[in-house]
Amino acid sequence: MGHTILVTGAAGFVGMHVVKQLLGRERMPVGSGAEEAFDRILITDRATPLIADPRIKAVPGDIADPDFARSLVTPDVKLVFHLAGVVSGSAEADLDLGLAVNLDGTRALMDACRLLNTNPRFVFTSSIAAFGIPLPARIDDDTEGFPSMSYGAQKRMCELLIDDYTRRGILDGRVLRLPGIVVRPPNPNGALSAFNSDMIREPLAGHEVVLPVSKNACLWIMSVRQAANNLIHAAALAPDVLGARRTLNLPAVTVTAGEVADALERVKPGSAALIRHEVQPMIEAKFGGFTRDFHPTRALALGFTCDAGIDALIDDYVQHGS
Amino acid sequence: MGHTILVTGAAGFVGMHVVKQLLGRERMPVGSGAEEAFDRILITDRATPLIADPRIKAVPGDIADPDFARSLVTPDVKLVFHLAGVVSGSAEADLDLGLAVNLDGTRALMDACRLLNTNPRFVFTSSIAAFGIPLPARIDDDTEGFPSMSYGAQKRMCELLIDDYTRRGILDGRVLRLPGIVVRPPNPNGALSAFNSDMIREPLAGHEVVLPVSKNACLWIMSVRQAANNLIHAAALAPDVLGARRTLNLPAVTVTAGEVADALERVKPGSAALIRHEVQPMIEAKFGGFTRDFHPTRALALGFTCDAGIDALIDDYVQHGS
Repeated sequence: MGHTILVTGAAGFVGMHVVKQLLGRERMPVGSGAEEAFDRILITDRATPLIADPRIKAVPGDIADPDFARSLVTPDVKLVFHLAGVVSGSAEADLDLGLAVNLDGTRALMDACRLLNTNPRFVFTSSIAAFGIPLPARIDDDTEGFPSMSYGAQKRMCELLIDDYTRRGILDGRVLRLPGIVVRPPNPNGALSAFNSDMIREPLAGHEVVLPVSKNACLWIMSVRQAANNLIHAAALAPDVLGARRTLNLPAVTVTAGEVADALERVKPGSAALIRHEVQPMIEAKFGGFTRDFHPTRALALGFTCDAGIDALIDDYVQHGS
Repeated sequence: MGHTILVTGAAGFVGMHVVKQLLGRERMPVGSGAEEAFDRILITDRATPLIADPRIKAVPGDIADPDFARSLVTPDVKLVFHLAGVVSGSAEADLDLGLAVNLDGTRALMDACRLLNTNPRFVFTSSIAAFGIPLPARIDDDTEGFPSMSYGAQKRMCELLIDDYTRRGILDGRVLRLPGIVVRPPNPNGALSAFNSDMIREPLAGHEVVLPVSKNACLWIMSVRQAANNLIHAAALAPDVLGARRTLNLPAVTVTAGEVADALERVKPGSAALIRHEVQPMIEAKFGGFTRDFHPTRALALGFTCDAGIDALIDDYVQHGS
């Protein structure tokens, strides 16, 4: 029997980078210096990207269809990157869709893992939307999440379910709460945090950009390459270092919109002047108030990383693009 | 159109007391001194109790059947007490059953409320099982719940869903995390915390009892009459005093098993000698380590109450029975 890695949401921004990084290797570390070879990467999304590599098998479909979700978890699946999800604005606009994809789709995948009886590794992307407003003045590994959007509530519910399934030996969960992942291409996917990317991409391209938050808004961001690194690192950790609580707050660049503008100005003089602020109070409250008193202690101790700072993050984008 | 109160889990220990208290009144306070008359109490459980009162309509059925759950929420339902649930030991023994009743059953009821478009009040019993092991050394209104049993995980997921549905205006949620409710009759319902009741009921009846926790185990308990009072109080509060976070840690009698024995001895000399301890480490860890550094600040400010102490709680049982 082969060894398959399943990646859902493979056509997404983070998913594409995870797949790309997986294709750059033949073996996955599994902790304590050991590695396992894999021979297939099963990628899925509503429409799957064309990737010319014999290890890729693409299966397009809707993760909200429980039969489809279950069909993905074949007995040779040893590792799942479950990245598919309906993002913040879309989950807010359509409660049924958000629940069907974010909660029920995740549960269907997990129940398919249960049928395997092999305790597969299950890497899941949660979100800092697990913290709602008022955003906590200090955030550490014990800070309670009181989500204030359906997206965050659904992610938090999945975190709880993954901890419980992990405890029961059904799967071996690893959940990363992602900050704003940048720099996304301009295609809107319904994320209310899209401005995190717009504010970097557009001024560097010489375009004006209107931000829904103020200069003082504090954001948590991470480059997509760091996000992919961290997801693969999560998959590679030995179970015994993770303990019972499988959700980790990832480290992030904590930066104000004004500091982003200053950094852009250093890279490309004149770009900061292209940024205008038209504050939308709901967006400012939910996305612009992340604290700098942030202590992702467990994730740092487990070797997760973030960009060295806003300058490094922008340099990475300038060098490598989206 | 009439005004109906729906009570699920009506044959349960807490449910019976809620129904009894409702039957003792004709109107429900709805906050700010206002009251609303009700003309029907729709009770449901797998088997419904026989109650000779023209206001009672009994509909037996399985809340895990989504069609049945939805059928209960008729347009005249203005208030729901959703007390039905699969308790700790049973939810641990049967994951599917726990998820079907505790999560999916609750969601089906909530989705039926959504179809009403009337924002009905929705009172839900969660549990201190939302706190898992290691039990926190201090518990206040911001203490994160990391459940360590499927029961607690399922309850915490419902709390998140109820907050989200409340925020969206689908229903008006009020969630109480109940401590151990005593003094239950001896019929086992699969609750691992059954010893909370056994340790009081059996010695007072002159019977020996074996507890799965040590003398030093610290428990959180409440009389069933206080629990019913609090649930009705929750239903009666005006929405504007509750804010966005609809889950409340109820005050409780925090007492060690040894202190319970001392209190029993005062009421009935010789009864403490009937208590033996055969510690089950898993039960001791999950149920015997509740902190006395407990600050249910919001619930106290909102007028929720608990028994005055272990003596008062035992007196209540001696006077009124189960």
